[in-house]
Amino acid sequence: MMPSQQGYDRAITVFSPDGRLYQVEYAIETVKRGALAVGVRTKNGVVIAVEEKSRKLQIITTPQKIFQIDYHIGAAAAGYIPDARVQVDDARYFSQSNKLTYDEPVEVETVAKHLADQSHQFTQYSGVRPFGVALIIAGVDRKGTKIFVTDPSGTYIPYTAVAIGGNSDEVTDFLEKNYKNGMSMDETMSLAIAAINLKSDEKDVKHIRMSKIRTDTKLFEKVSSEELAKHAQAEGASSNKST
Amino acid sequence: MMPSQQGYDRAITVFSPDGRLYQVEYAIETVKRGALAVGVRTKNGVVIAVEEKSRKLQIITTPQKIFQIDYHIGAAAAGYIPDARVQVDDARYFSQSNKLTYDEPVEVETVAKHLADQSHQFTQYSGVRPFGVALIIAGVDRKGTKIFVTDPSGTYIPYTAVAIGGNSDEVTDFLEKNYKNGMSMDETMSLAIAAINLKSDEKDVKHIRMSKIRTDTKLFEKVSSEELAKHAQAEGASSNKST
Amino acid sequence: MMPSQQGYDRAITVFSPDGRLYQVEYAIETVKRGALAVGVRTKNGVVIAVEEKSRKLQIITTPQKIFQIDYHIGAAAAGYIPDARVQVDDARYFSQSNKLTYDEPVEVETVAKHLADQSHQFTQYSGVRPFGVALIIAGVDRKGTKIFVTDPSGTYIPYTAVAIGGNSDEVTDFLEKNYKNGMSMDETMSLAIAAINLKSDEKDVKHIRMSKIRTDTKLFEKVSSEELAKHAQAEGASSNKST
Amino acid sequence: MMPSQQGYDRAITVFSPDGRLYQVEYAIETVKRGALAVGVRTKNGVVIAVEEKSRKLQIITTPQKIFQIDYHIGAAAAGYIPDARVQVDDARYFSQSNKLTYDEPVEVETVAKHLADQSHQFTQYSGVRPFGVALIIAGVDRKGTKIFVTDPSGTYIPYTAVAIGGNSDEVTDFLEKNYKNGMSMDETMSLAIAAINLKSDEKDVKHIRMSKIRTDTKLFEKVSSEELAKHAQAEGASSNKST
Amino acid sequence: MMPSQQGYDRAITVFSPDGRLYQVEYAIETVKRGALAVGVRTKNGVVIAVEEKSRKLQIITTPQKIFQIDYHIGAAAAGYIPDARVQVDDARYFSQSNKLTYDEPVEVETVAKHLADQSHQFTQYSGVRPFGVALIIAGVDRKGTKIFVTDPSGTYIPYTAVAIGGNSDEVTDFLEKNYKNGMSMDETMSLAIAAINLKSDEKDVKHIRMSKIRTDTKLFEKVSSEELAKHAQAEGASSNKST
Amino acid sequence: MMPSQQGYDRAITVFSPDGRLYQVEYAIETVKRGALAVGVRTKNGVVIAVEEKSRKLQIITTPQKIFQIDYHIGAAAAGYIPDARVQVDDARYFSQSNKLTYDEPVEVETVAKHLADQSHQFTQYSGVRPFGVALIIAGVDRKGTKIFVTDPSGTYIPYTAVAIGGNSDEVTDFLEKNYKNGMSMDETMSLAIAAINLKSDEKDVKHIRMSKIRTDTKLFEKVSSEELAKHAQAEGASSNKST
Amino acid sequence: MMPSQQGYDRAITVFSPDGRLYQVEYAIETVKRGALAVGVRTKNGVVIAVEEKSRKLQIITTPQKIFQIDYHIGAAAAGYIPDARVQVDDARYFSQSNKLTYDEPVEVETVAKHLADQSHQFTQYSGVRPFGVALIIAGVDRKGTKIFVTDPSGTYIPYTAVAIGGNSDEVTDFLEKNYKNGMSMDETMSLAIAAINLKSDEKDVKHIRMSKIRTDTKLFEKVSSEELAKHAQAEGASSNKST
Repeated sequence: MMPSQQGYDRAITVFSPDGRLYQVEYAIETVKRGALAVGVRTKNGVVIAVEEKSRKLQIITTPQKIFQIDYHIGAAAAGYIPDARVQVDDARYFSQSNKLTYDEPVEVETVAKHLADQSHQFTQYSGVRPFGVALIIAGVDRKGTKIFVTDPSGTYIPYTAVAIGGNSDEVTDFLEKNYKNGMSMDETMSLAIAAINLKSDEKDVKHIRMSKIRTDTKLFEKVSSEELAKHAQAEGASSNKST
Repeated sequence: MMPSQQGYDRAITVFSPDGRLYQVEYAIETVKRGALAVGVRTKNGVVIAVEEKSRKLQIITTPQKIFQIDYHIGAAAAGYIPDARVQVDDARYFSQSNKLTYDEPVEVETVAKHLADQSHQFTQYSGVRPFGVALIIAGVDRKGTKIFVTDPSGTYIPYTAVAIGGNSDEVTDFLEKNYKNGMSMDETMSLAIAAINLKSDEKDVKHIRMSKIRTDTKLFEKVSSEELAKHAQAEGASSNKST
Repeated sequence: MMPSQQGYDRAITVFSPDGRLYQVEYAIETVKRGALAVGVRTKNGVVIAVEEKSRKLQIITTPQKIFQIDYHIGAAAAGYIPDARVQVDDARYFSQSNKLTYDEPVEVETVAKHLADQSHQFTQYSGVRPFGVALIIAGVDRKGTKIFVTDPSGTYIPYTAVAIGGNSDEVTDFLEKNYKNGMSMDETMSLAIAAINLKSDEKDVKHIRMSKIRTDTKLFEKVSSEELAKHAQAEGASSNKST
Repeated sequence: MMPSQQGYDRAITVFSPDGRLYQVEYAIETVKRGALAVGVRTKNGVVIAVEEKSRKLQIITTPQKIFQIDYHIGAAAAGYIPDARVQVDDARYFSQSNKLTYDEPVEVETVAKHLADQSHQFTQYSGVRPFGVALIIAGVDRKGTKIFVTDPSGTYIPYTAVAIGGNSDEVTDFLEKNYKNGMSMDETMSLAIAAINLKSDEKDVKHIRMSKIRTDTKLFEKVSSEELAKHAQAEGASSNKST
Repeated sequence: MMPSQQGYDRAITVFSPDGRLYQVEYAIETVKRGALAVGVRTKNGVVIAVEEKSRKLQIITTPQKIFQIDYHIGAAAAGYIPDARVQVDDARYFSQSNKLTYDEPVEVETVAKHLADQSHQFTQYSGVRPFGVALIIAGVDRKGTKIFVTDPSGTYIPYTAVAIGGNSDEVTDFLEKNYKNGMSMDETMSLAIAAINLKSDEKDVKHIRMSKIRTDTKLFEKVSSEELAKHAQAEGASSNKST
Repeated sequence: MMPSQQGYDRAITVFSPDGRLYQVEYAIETVKRGALAVGVRTKNGVVIAVEEKSRKLQIITTPQKIFQIDYHIGAAAAGYIPDARVQVDDARYFSQSNKLTYDEPVEVETVAKHLADQSHQFTQYSGVRPFGVALIIAGVDRKGTKIFVTDPSGTYIPYTAVAIGGNSDEVTDFLEKNYKNGMSMDETMSLAIAAINLKSDEKDVKHIRMSKIRTDTKLFEKVSSEELAKHAQAEGASSNKST
Repeated sequence: MMPSQQGYDRAITVFSPDGRLYQVEYAIETVKRGALAVGVRTKNGVVIAVEEKSRKLQIITTPQKIFQIDYHIGAAAAGYIPDARVQVDDARYFSQSNKLTYDEPVEVETVAKHLADQSHQFTQYSGVRPFGVALIIAGVDRKGTKIFVTDPSGTYIPYTAVAIGGNSDEVTDFLEKNYKNGMSMDETMSLAIAAINLKSDEKDVKHIRMSKIRTDTKLFEKVSSEELAKHAQAEGASSNKST
């Protein structure tokens, strides 16, 4: 948490004397306070995963932080989750509308840019606050597997593997060290589990939600608890990851 | 009650330096100051109940905190009740409009998502305050029995059994310990009464309002004082609940 | 009067850290500063009465705090009276419009809900202040005799007998102790006079304005000074009220 | 003058903790700072009068504080006079429009209610200030002679005789003591002059402007300086007024 | 200059506790800071004059503070002159539009009232500041010679002779002492020059701009420097004015 | 620079207690902080010139502070130059539109008044700041050669020779002393160069941009560096200017 | 970083007492905090380059700070990059629309002026903040090679070679010393690399992104890493640049 900044940080559309937009920086702080989310892509597909803890009688079949945007695109969120839901809803309409207009599936980058533009608008005009969420937009389109990160400032950046939310810097370091070109989907899922668990108090997979999109099917699929447990074991077995 | 936060908590659309939206957190505090409301679902139906005290000459046939949304959906509220009434009115229009458009009863989740989206809008735009109420949306649709909780932040989360309002954490613990799969509707109602009375000063049922929707009829019904009293006795007789 | 609350109480659409809407609470304080108003219903009709002091040359044939809304509905106000006049005007249009649409007299609860919804809007949006008035809406419709109280927060609650305004808590206590089922209209009017005078400096009826609606005629009637004086005597004669 | 009230008195649509609308009270203070205006009605007509001092070369044939609204209605103002002019202009249009719609002269109460409703709007919505003026609306219509007082809060109250502006409480007391039923128009004018001069530094009629509407003609007439002087003498001759 | 008033004087539409509109009073202060302007009318015509100092290479054939509104109406301004220009432009359109509608020259009072109404609007609504200028509206219409003064508060008052701007109180005193009924146009112009020079550092006429409208021609005419000089001499010769 | 004025200077549409509009005065301060600009007219034409320093690799063929408005009108700016560009763009549209409507070239004064009116609007309404620029509008129309100065307050004043921006008072003094009726265009250009260089650190013409409009051609022409240098020499040769 | 300026710097449309627009100056500070960008033009084409550091698994084929606007125009940005993206998107629409209207490629200056006008609007109206970015707009049109710089104040200035962002003053000095007329495209690219590396911690080309537009093709081309490395070597070999 940053110390208060003499009032420049309270009005949304105001620069501070050193040229900073504090409201945007604070919204990014909201992202850092959120639980971890990771995305990894290989030649064979993309994997997104989040840490998500629930009450005992909460129904977890519909995860709160992983969303399907189109049949070939998904998103994982870190930060203020109601903002994520609203942005994802918007992205769903955008994708369908794009499909109707051009008669082909929307590209992943087009969706990421659309959401980044929307986030940007909320940093320049008064009467609104910035979105308090970062999203990993992941999918497979005719250009291959794609992962983009959007954040409250309105940027969107393509990655091969990335983490957002709490401890994202360390986890991204971990991904950079352990990512290998040509990993299989199974290895990719194991890596994502290891990334989530790197800084987590819990070391099993009950607190993990994961989805994947394979290059051959181009279909968003939920990864079941059983599959998660299997990959966690695989990951544990070969646990010689660099940290 | 939280201490004042240097002015970040007064303007609605502003993040604090540590990335929090104080106005939303304060609205959630309004919910915690409200009286308790619980919702429990079983295979056979859903039950919602609230604590509601009245003046002697107040007419209690129309409860203030339990609402019928559609013939198969009800809601229980905790927090600033006029906000609940407005959201429920909106949900009623939404349900009827949905029925007219798709010619089938609206799903419970669709209603919950609609209200959560509405709550979210009131956290992002200026000129309004957030809604100061949480709602348990309960119903029976073609997917079975459903319970969702919406709150001022704009989230909606599915539960099997849950409490909102004052002491909701302890009461939800109590529900988690005593909920059993396959409970009959009678057992479910007894559990709800026990949950309301767990932290209440009063131990009878005069201060309890309850409604239920059975899976076979799919019809919202008010539970009469007589029925309440009967289940309270049943509950007292077998009062070996875990706390 | 409550002490100032560190600025949370100045902007209308803002929650305080403990989840309160001070502007609404202050508007309710306006009601408490107002003169007393009471409403009592029996099987045979409803009675509303207010305390209203005037300058010597003021013309009192048109009371300031009792209003006719429709031929079968009236209202008594406590608090900021110009707000009451505006709400009553609105209720008159609403009643006539309802009559034209459905070709039957509007129900009392429909009017009360309409005014409560209107009051609620003024608590959630900026650019306005809440209404500073509570109203007793009383009438006779096809469901029988009805009394509702609306207040600045946007609630409406049905009562058999109730007081609003200054000392309303003690006077409602008094009504609860002395209300009897099956009272005649004459006894009801005597009870209302006793209620008004319970905490008043004056003990005659010069400062009381009263109207009644009988179940058989369903017509709003002003109670004359003569009739008031007669019931006051009756009330004095049998003055064994519980306090 | 009241002391400053910790900021509750600066924003128009805000209640203070004790339930007061300071901006409205301050606007009423503007009225009290204004020069005195009085209105008296008898069976035979109505009289309005104001205290109005002028520079030597100012042209006084058109008074600044007495206005004709319709041929049978006039107004006297105390407070911020440009506000009075705007409200009177509005009342003139309203009267003509009423005449065109219903083909009969507007009633005095209808005009008073219209202006009070307008004043009320300016107390509830932001972006405006309340009107800083009180008006005595006086006239003769098919119901007889009528006098109403409107003020910044949005109330309108009927009187037989009343004073507004500086020292209005003492002068209203004086009117209450000296008003007699069945006074002739001449006696009424003398009483009005005595009322104006009760607290004035000047004791002649140079600083008085007066208009009257007689029941038989129903026509607004300016009272000439000569007529004023004559009634002042009459008033002086029989100066046994109670004070 | 008045001392600061605890914040009541910064927001336009706010009354102070003692019922004052500080923004309007400050705008009137702007008028007092302006250079002097005078207006005098006689049976034979009206004269307006202002004090106006210029740089050496400024072109003075078009004065900055005297304006022609219609062929028979002119205006002299004191205060914030760009506001005067805007009001005069508006008055020109208004006069032409009036001519087109009624097919006769607009009356001087109609123009003065129009400008006063406009000034008033700027004192009641937020988002604007009051006009910071007073105007002497002078002209000859079918009712004779007329002079009105409008000011930032929205009043308009008819005068025979008047001064606005710096030292206007003393100069109006001077005019009241020296004005004589039946003065010729020449005497009137001499009086106006004497009035301007009463408190001025300069005693010739280089700093004076003057216009006149004669009753016989009803035409706005600029008074040339030569004519000014001639009347100044005349004025000096007979300089037995009372001060 | 003026000291801060207790908050009256921060909100645009607010008068200070002594009747000043600080925001307008501060905008005029912006003009004084700008580089010098001068305008001089003779019978034979008008000349405008500015001081404009550039980086070495900046392209100076399009000057930043001298603009062509129409083929016969130009402008020189001092202050916040982006504001000048916007006002000049507006003036270009205005001139063309005027030409289309009246089928003759717009007059210089018409353009100056248009820009002054626009500047005035930005001093009276909220939601904008005043323009921070003064303009010398110079041209030749059917009335001859014309120079007007517009400034942030909304005034426009005709001059024969004038300076705006930094040190404009001294330079205008200089112009008043050295301006001679009947100067040739060459002498006029030499005078303008001398005026710019009076207070400048540099004494050559590299930092000077100049344009002229001759009475015979009525065409806006840029004065080339060579021509500037020639006149500077001429000016140096006969450098017996009064200061 | 500048020290805080007593509140003048927080509201966008407000001048400070010394005539400065702090919000605009702070936005320019944002530019200075950004990474360096340079633009250089020769007879044969234009080159733009930026410093852009990335995470290891970030995909760098689409640079974040260099944009293609039209087939013959590109842009390099320094400052708040999401603002740059939005301005560039706008410029793309503008260019296409211009092409459709006039049926010829838009000129580089037309695009620069359009963006500067847009930036200016955001400095004068409330409800928005200024753009926090400077852009080098570079291209080849029928007038030859062109480079313009736009900044948050709304200016646009043509250059032959220029740097924006961090250390731009030193780097522009460096360009001014080392720029030579008649440089080949290869020499130009080497100069741009040297300019970026002048103040950079890194001395190779991994952190440099570059694009060029050749006069003969008039086509925006990305410069590949290989080509960059080659020119860096060339630059190193002949590293006798003046600093």
